[in-house]
Amino acid sequence: MSALLEQLIDALRVLPGVGQKSAQRMAYHLLERQRDGGRRLSEALEAAMSRIGNCGRCRDFSETPVCPVCASASRDAQVLCVVETPADRLAIEQATDFRGLYFVLHGRLSPLDGIGPRELGLDGLGTRLAEGEVRELIVATNPTVEGEATAHYLAQLARQHGVRPSRPAHGLPLGGELEYVDRGTLSHAFGSRSDITG
Amino acid sequence: MSALLEQLIDALRVLPGVGQKSAQRMAYHLLERQRDGGRRLSEALEAAMSRIGNCGRCRDFSETPVCPVCASASRDAQVLCVVETPADRLAIEQATDFRGLYFVLHGRLSPLDGIGPRELGLDGLGTRLAEGEVRELIVATNPTVEGEATAHYLAQLARQHGVRPSRPAHGLPLGGELEYVDRGTLSHAFGSRSDITG
Repeated sequence: MSALLEQLIDALRVLPGVGQKSAQRMAYHLLERQRDGGRRLSEALEAAMSRIGNCGRCRDFSETPVCPVCASASRDAQVLCVVETPADRLAIEQATDFRGLYFVLHGRLSPLDGIGPRELGLDGLGTRLAEGEVRELIVATNPTVEGEATAHYLAQLARQHGVRPSRPAHGLPLGGELEYVDRGTLSHAFGSRSDITG
Repeated sequence: MSALLEQLIDALRVLPGVGQKSAQRMAYHLLERQRDGGRRLSEALEAAMSRIGNCGRCRDFSETPVCPVCASASRDAQVLCVVETPADRLAIEQATDFRGLYFVLHGRLSPLDGIGPRELGLDGLGTRLAEGEVRELIVATNPTVEGEATAHYLAQLARQHGVRPSRPAHGLPLGGELEYVDRGTLSHAFGSRSDITG
């Protein structure tokens, strides 16, 4: 097999869920029928990998120092929603009419993996809560064990700064990933979120 | 969402079997954990799309005018194996001890889709058979209706030039794709190939 083709098949395996056979199929498909699409993908990858960084406010992916959502004057800065991943933020944005701001953890507390508050940017979140503008912190971590532990930590952090912690209504399937919940359920859960007490 | 990210997600959908949700997942995965892998993929794609052409002898993908297999002195030029796709050729090469040469159709006869002998390079194959070096033509098209029709045409072409047509032994699952047959079955089928008579 051509060395370039072998390199392409090998490089495609960096994609999640793509093994040797799928990578082969993708490479042949591109060479056979989608050379222009393959070139466009090459350019899009290079641009995205090199130029997408993180928003200095919400930590979501952004190609500008502050992302459009954080920079928008029409969003409600008094409500801040914390999510585990950019995909969660996107799912909420697409499914609900939430107009507040976001904070992206890029993970969840997981001491055994060495992921503590610092790795999730929670020092920065604390500083932000201390500024006094945020009134409510919606904790939208996943309903998994680690997500719940993270939610507990975030609720305490909020209370320390006099901010009301809340979370989306139960109804999210336990053990599942927020990213994959159907829009109706997610929207309902956002609408009937409840305060965290105790 | 970042425009560059949207472009990346869109560009990823050129890959076979990748829809909006998978593309999103892939893009986030690369940004989050595999930036170097993403850059390598970008380079591999660009190199492959621009520099991989077709071998002038066997029509398989090649980055040189004649591919290494066709250029090799250690292959038996008296036996020529015709396959539908480069993936089929690769499967045979990996599963069997076949040491002859290949001819890749890049498709199969399909008059309704406007795919005739010319589109499959069969004029070039005819010229090659007329040269007299080839003694046996192994017709390894897929056991589908169109593949069988193509095999029939190829057998006639071989006989016209005094070349013995053969095909791999039955045992290949009907209606399936040669590319996905397990190695043992494929190897057995190659070992007990039979002449095409009548």
